[in-house]
Amino acid sequence: MPTARLETFSDGVFAIAATLLILNVEVSHHGSLGHDLVHIWPAYAAYAVSFLVIGVIWVNHHTVLHLVDRADRAFLFVNVVFLLAVAFLPFPTRVVADNLRGGDARAATVFYGLNSIAMSIGFLAVWLYASRGGRLLAADADPRLVSGITRSFLPGVPLYTVATLSCLISPWLGAALYTALALFYVASSTVFARSE
Amino acid sequence: MPTARLETFSDGVFAIAATLLILNVEVSHHGSLGHDLVHIWPAYAAYAVSFLVIGVIWVNHHTVLHLVDRADRAFLFVNVVFLLAVAFLPFPTRVVADNLRGGDARAATVFYGLNSIAMSIGFLAVWLYASRGGRLLAADADPRLVSGITRSFLPGVPLYTVATLSCLISPWLGAALYTALALFYVASSTVFARSE
Amino acid sequence: MPTARLETFSDGVFAIAATLLILNVEVSHHGSLGHDLVHIWPAYAAYAVSFLVIGVIWVNHHTVLHLVDRADRAFLFVNVVFLLAVAFLPFPTRVVADNLRGGDARAATVFYGLNSIAMSIGFLAVWLYASRGGRLLAADADPRLVSGITRSFLPGVPLYTVATLSCLISPWLGAALYTALALFYVASSTVFARSE
Amino acid sequence: MPTARLETFSDGVFAIAATLLILNVEVSHHGSLGHDLVHIWPAYAAYAVSFLVIGVIWVNHHTVLHLVDRADRAFLFVNVVFLLAVAFLPFPTRVVADNLRGGDARAATVFYGLNSIAMSIGFLAVWLYASRGGRLLAADADPRLVSGITRSFLPGVPLYTVATLSCLISPWLGAALYTALALFYVASSTVFARSE
Repeated sequence: MPTARLETFSDGVFAIAATLLILNVEVSHHGSLGHDLVHIWPAYAAYAVSFLVIGVIWVNHHTVLHLVDRADRAFLFVNVVFLLAVAFLPFPTRVVADNLRGGDARAATVFYGLNSIAMSIGFLAVWLYASRGGRLLAADADPRLVSGITRSFLPGVPLYTVATLSCLISPWLGAALYTALALFYVASSTVFARSE
Repeated sequence: MPTARLETFSDGVFAIAATLLILNVEVSHHGSLGHDLVHIWPAYAAYAVSFLVIGVIWVNHHTVLHLVDRADRAFLFVNVVFLLAVAFLPFPTRVVADNLRGGDARAATVFYGLNSIAMSIGFLAVWLYASRGGRLLAADADPRLVSGITRSFLPGVPLYTVATLSCLISPWLGAALYTALALFYVASSTVFARSE
Repeated sequence: MPTARLETFSDGVFAIAATLLILNVEVSHHGSLGHDLVHIWPAYAAYAVSFLVIGVIWVNHHTVLHLVDRADRAFLFVNVVFLLAVAFLPFPTRVVADNLRGGDARAATVFYGLNSIAMSIGFLAVWLYASRGGRLLAADADPRLVSGITRSFLPGVPLYTVATLSCLISPWLGAALYTALALFYVASSTVFARSE
Repeated sequence: MPTARLETFSDGVFAIAATLLILNVEVSHHGSLGHDLVHIWPAYAAYAVSFLVIGVIWVNHHTVLHLVDRADRAFLFVNVVFLLAVAFLPFPTRVVADNLRGGDARAATVFYGLNSIAMSIGFLAVWLYASRGGRLLAADADPRLVSGITRSFLPGVPLYTVATLSCLISPWLGAALYTALALFYVASSTVFARSE
């Protein structure tokens, strides 16, 4: 079974989930429009971080499927469950944007973190299902590249767990860690690409 | 007429309908945010079940179009009518999420079931139109595979009819059956794939 | 310039516009939920007719691009303007659903008709730009097929003009004509396909 | 790394952002429905201008990727950041539609302009990253065509800066300049194509 339609469907979900994020950005009348547009900066920040996160996921999914040369049905469903977690992202993004200032920032950022952990587990499951014993990989996949990818994906779950727990100490620290993780992934996969 | 654009269009509708489901998940202020986020679990459950249902439909549509090697216009329109029912799914999903607890759960779950029956009939029509007399199938399609697919798709309509009727006895029983059916389809097509 | 990305982009807009239509379907509390779900049938009808219209447009766009084997930039922009009218469809669909009963049905159905006329003009412009003097057609395009397509597309604008004007007499007559036109196009292109 | 999935993802974001614009068009009851539908013409104008802007971006992105024959990860992320700005467009479009008449038109049009400047910078970054030293270009890319494209993309940022500043003098002048720029890009790339 070829992977073409899996890529089309996944890219569709990534593109839609990223683009729907803007529907969470709304301005309500408090002062002048200029003031209100500045006042909602947490909504812009949440939009940008979540958009980058989906961008990172898309690039990494790209890398994984570049090495996978066939799909079985179980792999399609592991992907569907992973996409279920990704397509959920607009909701916690909205919750954070609405509550980071003047709401219950702790509950909001923890909720965002739980979704991020679920996405990390889902992505790891996609990769491990495909790569264990070379199940779905191209016969000529470089074993060092494969184990390098495994090493680069494994820290995602513990890193997001730490960021989520840090929200209990300070929601702003947690939000800063989410932002830092997104930027770190952008930077590291770019640098990683250079050294390939 | 090749089937490439039919796949692009169908995958687009599947991906969008699945991703739009998250717009139905909303939190309203009752108690603390943490409490409210837990309180709306029927919305998460409805999101997850409907997302999985679309995932199952996508995988099965994949299987069908893998065997179909040409399309005629009537086939395109049978598909359009089927997609009309699939793209409708976010609405009954919202109705169930809003009414499963504290609303009219019976009417909501029956409504969800009627849409599921319509999707099942639509999918069966797509398959039977393509496969009757081998109309649109590849010349080398394995007849045992073809009749095996027919056998696996036929129970969908009666199963969803039973689940819908069971909502009249108990909406929670019906909701449990919808969940079980989605999980059953995920499990059975995965197992089916193993035995291929 | 090849037409592949034009097809991807157009199919994306068609799939999204069709799938967004469901966001217009909402239930508000008047009586029991069962009653309310039946009461909003004009929203279902508007959804179904607009979905079919987009389906017809998608199939016909398919047919046109099957004959076109290259694009120039002017053609891309003629398409963009056409897509602008198609992507507008969810708005008049909502206006009709909200006003067909108990609102200003005349203004609503005329508005829907004006958008339909705009789509018909746009589609005709796409086809005539591509086909005049065989500008963008494949060298081996059958001239009889080309002129047959021109003949089948020309009546769209006058037919939708008549349907729109009939809304001034009776909005229900107009709505019935919109429905009949959608079904007629589905039926005729299916029959047309048989005789190919 | 091939560019196929970059095109799929980008076209997805362009198509979705363009099609979501219609969700910003809403009618509220002031007078008769006919009057209200005419009264909201700024919403239609904002929809049409933003749709055309995305159309222009899509056609130009098409042109760029036609010359690019490989992608590295940094290029994917430059694209993601550019898409982040494009997917943001529905929000300032809504702000302009809501405030052009009877609201704070100055702040709204300046906000729209800032997003346009961000998109222009993003698009320039995509092109310069790919073309500097021929980094990602096909080996046989015509140097005159490459420098012609650079010349045609460079004025975007200063032009949108002038239009944004002009909103401080008169929001209507600014809105007219945004419209003129969109139409100018449509016209110029069409004429440019003729002379190729």
